[in-house]
Amino acid sequence: MSFLAFDLGGTKLASGIFSDQLDLIEKKTIPLEGLVGKGVGDLIAEQIDGMILSQTHAGFSVNAIGISIPGIYSKEKGTVWAPNIPGWEDFPLIDFLSKITRGIPVFIDNDRACYIRGESTIGKARDCNDAIFIAVGTGIGAGILANGNVLRGAHDIAGAIGWMALDRPFSEKYISSGCFESMCSGEGIVKVAEEKINADELYSGQLNKEGITTHDVFAAFEENDPVAGFIINQCIELWGMALANMISIFNPQMVIFGGGVFGPAAKFIPQIVSEAKKWAQPVSINQVEVVASALGQDAGLHGAACMAMKNLKNGNDL
Amino acid sequence: MSFLAFDLGGTKLASGIFSDQLDLIEKKTIPLEGLVGKGVGDLIAEQIDGMILSQTHAGFSVNAIGISIPGIYSKEKGTVWAPNIPGWEDFPLIDFLSKITRGIPVFIDNDRACYIRGESTIGKARDCNDAIFIAVGTGIGAGILANGNVLRGAHDIAGAIGWMALDRPFSEKYISSGCFESMCSGEGIVKVAEEKINADELYSGQLNKEGITTHDVFAAFEENDPVAGFIINQCIELWGMALANMISIFNPQMVIFGGGVFGPAAKFIPQIVSEAKKWAQPVSINQVEVVASALGQDAGLHGAACMAMKNLKNGNDL
Repeated sequence: MSFLAFDLGGTKLASGIFSDQLDLIEKKTIPLEGLVGKGVGDLIAEQIDGMILSQTHAGFSVNAIGISIPGIYSKEKGTVWAPNIPGWEDFPLIDFLSKITRGIPVFIDNDRACYIRGESTIGKARDCNDAIFIAVGTGIGAGILANGNVLRGAHDIAGAIGWMALDRPFSEKYISSGCFESMCSGEGIVKVAEEKINADELYSGQLNKEGITTHDVFAAFEENDPVAGFIINQCIELWGMALANMISIFNPQMVIFGGGVFGPAAKFIPQIVSEAKKWAQPVSINQVEVVASALGQDAGLHGAACMAMKNLKNGNDL
Repeated sequence: MSFLAFDLGGTKLASGIFSDQLDLIEKKTIPLEGLVGKGVGDLIAEQIDGMILSQTHAGFSVNAIGISIPGIYSKEKGTVWAPNIPGWEDFPLIDFLSKITRGIPVFIDNDRACYIRGESTIGKARDCNDAIFIAVGTGIGAGILANGNVLRGAHDIAGAIGWMALDRPFSEKYISSGCFESMCSGEGIVKVAEEKINADELYSGQLNKEGITTHDVFAAFEENDPVAGFIINQCIELWGMALANMISIFNPQMVIFGGGVFGPAAKFIPQIVSEAKKWAQPVSINQVEVVASALGQDAGLHGAACMAMKNLKNGNDL
């Protein structure tokens, strides 16, 4: 007995084989390398096919397949909208995979839902009914567990907290990805850094180069670089405000920061909580635990496996 | 067959008799006039007692009693915390009323939960599974319906959106009631007006008097008063940002503005929506309807009746 899990990102596909106890037994990551549309579907299908064969040869049956996708899954239509994968405006993933899955149930959900499902099943929010996963990577989004259920909204796009309004007046910079995300996501951090450096002719620090990354900014912060200092402190303030808002609105037991940026930003969680304490509903902020993800880079993979197991148990249809 | 409903506020108790079809048949409002602690409990008990007797004399049975309270109800303990009623830190309302309710089930819930329950049962959000009531009165709070259930949080204080962080840097003014509420509630609007007037020695407009009210500010806005203009425009911006945040986070079908301030502010809803469109997740904002409450000042009373009927139907315990 085993579960197959996939975490599709904008640039890579991670796949894993999990035991029926949800232990990660085998893991692989394949870059998409420019694959688009049907090509990405083919890659997932090939992987599933190979993994089912290898499991069968080893004498194991596959109970279910879980797939985490970076966008919106329409359960009704069985299709996926993934803005970072060209050709996946309405990709019929369930139909596409049906030929090679040999009747094994396939469950698909968005990455944010998988993250919080993983943390509440085998991660830090175990046994929590009300918990939030704030994912800060290239973009920002939240997986929200409210009274034991993943919050979906009327059209499955709840948790779009990258669009949180935190700093008025409105700026043109917020148009493409939202106020919070434009300043505090991985991409946002790099953009703000480039702007600051371009605007400051006297700056000659270590970020004064082409193609800086989020990691460069965190590294420069450690060296007391003034631009990095400005950006990280601004992020701590805004992460704190967003955390406060989620706590005041949801009164959760736990908030988990994860995604690529937490990572290096996990060490700032005590400062982020201090900032949040200024803003949040004072009873709620004292009832919540704020932690870094236990599942790290594998959160999507673990989450997809947990999601598949849960759906299988509940007898949910596909 | 009938339902008794009560809407307890910080300064008054409204009571109503509803038909089994949830039509409001009779209504009464009694000022608390300085009553505190047990005195407020006695007032509710007297009203219930008299209403049960009158219903019995008229040949009607009372199915259930619903009570909306301005605070937090602990279902576990049957007690109420209501910060605006002295002596109600942990008031045992269920026990207190048990002697006079003659076995009729009593259901208690907080006002925000009652508002959204009322709107989703007999108001504008009928048949909505995902809807939000933003109550702007003396304070600000939200009743949130997510996938058909009222959002409660881990300790029953979800929806405390008066604490929403919208305007950095943090100011001492936000400490007592939160950033959003300190600027945009009824009390906040008056405070900001007083500050502006005190800071401007040259101001000689119609708000230059003792004891101004929220209604004075709205009236002055109609007369092009500059202080009122500043305040109402600031409110429209912040109400729009808060609306945007609720839409991005919850992806609801409908958001309803209610409470005493909406009222006069209901005419600004198109401008508030325009402001929200700048900030919100662009797909979600186009999937939502934003309206003023259909139930007006009676939202709490209607909501308490709906809540009682729903709990009775579901066989919920007390």
